[in-house]
Amino acid sequence: MELFYSRDIDGGICRLDKDESGHCVKVLRHRAGDEISVIDGCGTMYRCRITSDSPKGVEAMVVEETPDWGGHPYRLHMAVCPTKNNDRYEWFVEKACEMGLDEVSPVIGEHSERRVFKTARVEKILVSAAKQSLKGAVPVAHEPVSVKEFIEGVAGSGAGGDGAGAGGNGAGGPLKLIAYCFEDERVPRRSIKEVLGGYEGRDIIVLIGPEGDFSRTEAELAIQNGFIPVHLGDSRLRTETAALTAVAAAYFRYMEQ
Amino acid sequence: MELFYSRDIDGGICRLDKDESGHCVKVLRHRAGDEISVIDGCGTMYRCRITSDSPKGVEAMVVEETPDWGGHPYRLHMAVCPTKNNDRYEWFVEKACEMGLDEVSPVIGEHSERRVFKTARVEKILVSAAKQSLKGAVPVAHEPVSVKEFIEGVAGSGAGGDGAGAGGNGAGGPLKLIAYCFEDERVPRRSIKEVLGGYEGRDIIVLIGPEGDFSRTEAELAIQNGFIPVHLGDSRLRTETAALTAVAAAYFRYMEQ
Repeated sequence: MELFYSRDIDGGICRLDKDESGHCVKVLRHRAGDEISVIDGCGTMYRCRITSDSPKGVEAMVVEETPDWGGHPYRLHMAVCPTKNNDRYEWFVEKACEMGLDEVSPVIGEHSERRVFKTARVEKILVSAAKQSLKGAVPVAHEPVSVKEFIEGVAGSGAGGDGAGAGGNGAGGPLKLIAYCFEDERVPRRSIKEVLGGYEGRDIIVLIGPEGDFSRTEAELAIQNGFIPVHLGDSRLRTETAALTAVAAAYFRYMEQ
Repeated sequence: MELFYSRDIDGGICRLDKDESGHCVKVLRHRAGDEISVIDGCGTMYRCRITSDSPKGVEAMVVEETPDWGGHPYRLHMAVCPTKNNDRYEWFVEKACEMGLDEVSPVIGEHSERRVFKTARVEKILVSAAKQSLKGAVPVAHEPVSVKEFIEGVAGSGAGGDGAGAGGNGAGGPLKLIAYCFEDERVPRRSIKEVLGGYEGRDIIVLIGPEGDFSRTEAELAIQNGFIPVHLGDSRLRTETAALTAVAAAYFRYMEQ
């Protein structure tokens, strides 16, 4: 199924930008009168009939709209430190979008080697992954912030602490998880499977550290702000694999039997 | 932790091949007397003391051996059709090895576009992924066979049919799953999560089809041979993402709470 993407759908009129218009008219040779399918990136898929087939700006009339098209029954925000190799991060966002992702935040940790991040490129990958996996919603890619800024930014919200352990319903906000690799007797980590299993809400934030892991300070700050320390099982996973494993944990948690 | 790989460990003597020896002596500058860690690819990690530091062939004396080093509590054989783009398959085997994989079989389906496959390259990736994720065992990469040959090759074995549905213990052999995307009223698909949850054995084979999916004939042949048809949830996944999702399903199935 061939999908177009437009942020400009209003009053029953859908406009494609220059790239999408060129692809629609020059490559796929669509003409006025043809029906096309367009996602707005916010969750809705529109069936539209082309009214103007200009390769510079296609206009189409909305015929039918399907909200929450290809949606998933939870909200997942992955905050993942950039990998040394950009491809690995880009691979992660593509796969995460295919499975089910709502927001991605590149976070820079104290032990991060890479501190620059191309959000625009990630946005492009997310749009094509959403089209490819037939989803009306394109995950939001945020600008990079430090781990500390991210933790403080989502502070206050959170089912957090015992809430989730006791099967909290997340009324207090999202379930906030931090995955790190070191052991800390004072705050033993539980498996992400166990913590997600005991959570009855549907709003999840997961923090994944850089190759050098989170610093003790970052982990403590997270815990003080309601993040639950988790592990991802016994395997030693690369940053991007750990991140996708967490995405899969949420995907399976909410999968119908 | 820096690991070497050798298939030549016998009688308390470990020999590194030319590549590993060069890396050990020229790059890492190890000398006679140094201790190194070596995996045999079959699950054991050896602590060895170098006795000869020739860059052409390092010899070392085994000091200590740790069997089932970095192992996982199940056996997983993924039979996955080659992707159009090789990188995607190579990415899959790397990630699958990190999470937990025992065997990978490239299988050529009736709808497969790609029918050539470089097993040697996949083996290289598996060795470095096993080293990187600290596993003593390197998954076995088989030569390509057709889907039909693969199904008939594992026929006879299998917990299969209702066995797993009823929580079969796999006494009959491995649990054999086939993931395809079309619906067939006669044989409704169950979720991989449900089928794995009801399986008490630890030996699993999963068949993942090509971009064009399995043919009806292939699906029927698989079912006749004890494969259980499963789906991987509501998301539309690329071949390599579907394959890794199945690997993650097994990883979480056997993860301790």
